[in-house]
Amino acid sequence: MTETVVASATKTVRIGFERPFCVIGERINPTGRRKLAAEMAAGDFSTVEADTLAQVAAGASMLDVNAGIPLADEPAILARTIELVQSLTDLPLSIDSSIVAALEAGLAVYKGRPLVNSVTGEEERLEAVLPLIRKYDCAVVAISNDETGISEDPDVRFAVAKRIVERAQDHGIEPCDIVVDPLVMPIGALGQAGNSAFRLIRRLREELHVNTTCGASNVSFGLPNRHGLNAAFLCMAAGAGMTSAILNPLHAEEMTAVMGADVLLGKDRDCRSWLTRFREPTAEGTSRNDRRRRRA
Amino acid sequence: MTETVVASATKTVRIGFERPFCVIGERINPTGRRKLAAEMAAGDFSTVEADTLAQVAAGASMLDVNAGIPLADEPAILARTIELVQSLTDLPLSIDSSIVAALEAGLAVYKGRPLVNSVTGEEERLEAVLPLIRKYDCAVVAISNDETGISEDPDVRFAVAKRIVERAQDHGIEPCDIVVDPLVMPIGALGQAGNSAFRLIRRLREELHVNTTCGASNVSFGLPNRHGLNAAFLCMAAGAGMTSAILNPLHAEEMTAVMGADVLLGKDRDCRSWLTRFREPTAEGTSRNDRRRRRA
Repeated sequence: MTETVVASATKTVRIGFERPFCVIGERINPTGRRKLAAEMAAGDFSTVEADTLAQVAAGASMLDVNAGIPLADEPAILARTIELVQSLTDLPLSIDSSIVAALEAGLAVYKGRPLVNSVTGEEERLEAVLPLIRKYDCAVVAISNDETGISEDPDVRFAVAKRIVERAQDHGIEPCDIVVDPLVMPIGALGQAGNSAFRLIRRLREELHVNTTCGASNVSFGLPNRHGLNAAFLCMAAGAGMTSAILNPLHAEEMTAVMGADVLLGKDRDCRSWLTRFREPTAEGTSRNDRRRRRA
Repeated sequence: MTETVVASATKTVRIGFERPFCVIGERINPTGRRKLAAEMAAGDFSTVEADTLAQVAAGASMLDVNAGIPLADEPAILARTIELVQSLTDLPLSIDSSIVAALEAGLAVYKGRPLVNSVTGEEERLEAVLPLIRKYDCAVVAISNDETGISEDPDVRFAVAKRIVERAQDHGIEPCDIVVDPLVMPIGALGQAGNSAFRLIRRLREELHVNTTCGASNVSFGLPNRHGLNAAFLCMAAGAGMTSAILNPLHAEEMTAVMGADVLLGKDRDCRSWLTRFREPTAEGTSRNDRRRRRA
């Protein structure tokens, strides 16, 4: 049974085939958020703080932390952001950067066992990131592209993922510490993007026995009612075997989809999480769950 | 490629692995609707008329018609309802009754090639319904239970479905004219109901090569946020290979789920149905689609 173990100083989260879907909150990321980028560059972390608390309250399992701001000192800002976020929540974090020095700065201050986001199949990247994963004994997201780009053929993407897993093993990193991102393409541009993703997720699970993740909103790029389409995708991807995704936990449709998939895959024991979230309050203004908690 | 062909006098619908999901509107059914039952028994079909038009407008592919009213003359009422509904819409119908005489009365007046709902694996039912399907050359829903009841084991339910398909072949009915209902149990009572259904749907498709359907709302019985859970189930069932379902097309969450699954499975070419339904109107109050239609 594949389990990817990530942790903060005090809390462990296991990503796995038998575990509830792992929701990695995506909000702490200045990419495409000019105001947030300017704030973070100027040392103002008030939005980071608010985004942390809101995502925790919305039910995220982990939080992704990215500090990719053009021309800024990304390693220093990422390290500072991680320290701040870890002071606000005990959820484990994903340390997200395309700059290796920033990943290393984040790893140096992180308390616990993070998920590093990410390595690709590109030779230079493999040789830079895998030693860090080994040195800090943590888990890593592996993106299934390489020097040749992103193949439209899911079997080529599978081969890239397989090579990353093998290369990681050469570095002493177990497959359970690799979470593969199959790279979901926008369905509006590529009509087979869904079928390719589901096929790849199934193969990654059944043949490579690895956990999987993705940016859940890519699939709906350019189309209307993105949340509705993201929700459908998340249910179907979970049904095909996907075990985590990077998404905005404040969007109710996506969270309902993920929680519904957990119920239907028998991962939400006695539907407890579903009932806690959706049960109507009783006449006295409390849910049955509240009363049970009070009795305990 | 399995295709179940159903038709009204002027319109054909194909249920199939490569076709968009077939939404069978469930509203014309007095079961649990006391006011509708009283109206239909008294010869007042105004609600039937309204439900017909509303389901057509909401995007149903077919309509189920049921006239199961205790102590009423079900064969006569069912026949009259079918004639009325066929005068209002060209969508093909599913003729739904547990009384064989009512099925026969409906078949006698129906114009086109209907779906009969349903036969089970019970000996008496097989011998009563299959000759009718043969006589009227139509399609039939096969429910995977028999004299021993509904097994919790999906492999037993598969065996029942297989036996119905074989018995139908003895009567000269092809497997493409059988749409199997795997019988989805409430997940609140049976935690494995989802996994069982998905496994059964996959086996029915890959081994028996038959189309499948189900009552989409059974799965959420007794739980809060039923529409959210039904929507997740529909996406996952479609991902596992289910090709139709009986549901209320007026519920936006379920319809969005079904349409999203079609997009993601590559069955909604160029996302046309999705765009038609969800594209924002432009400033002039018309969608780009409207303008394209006008230009054509």
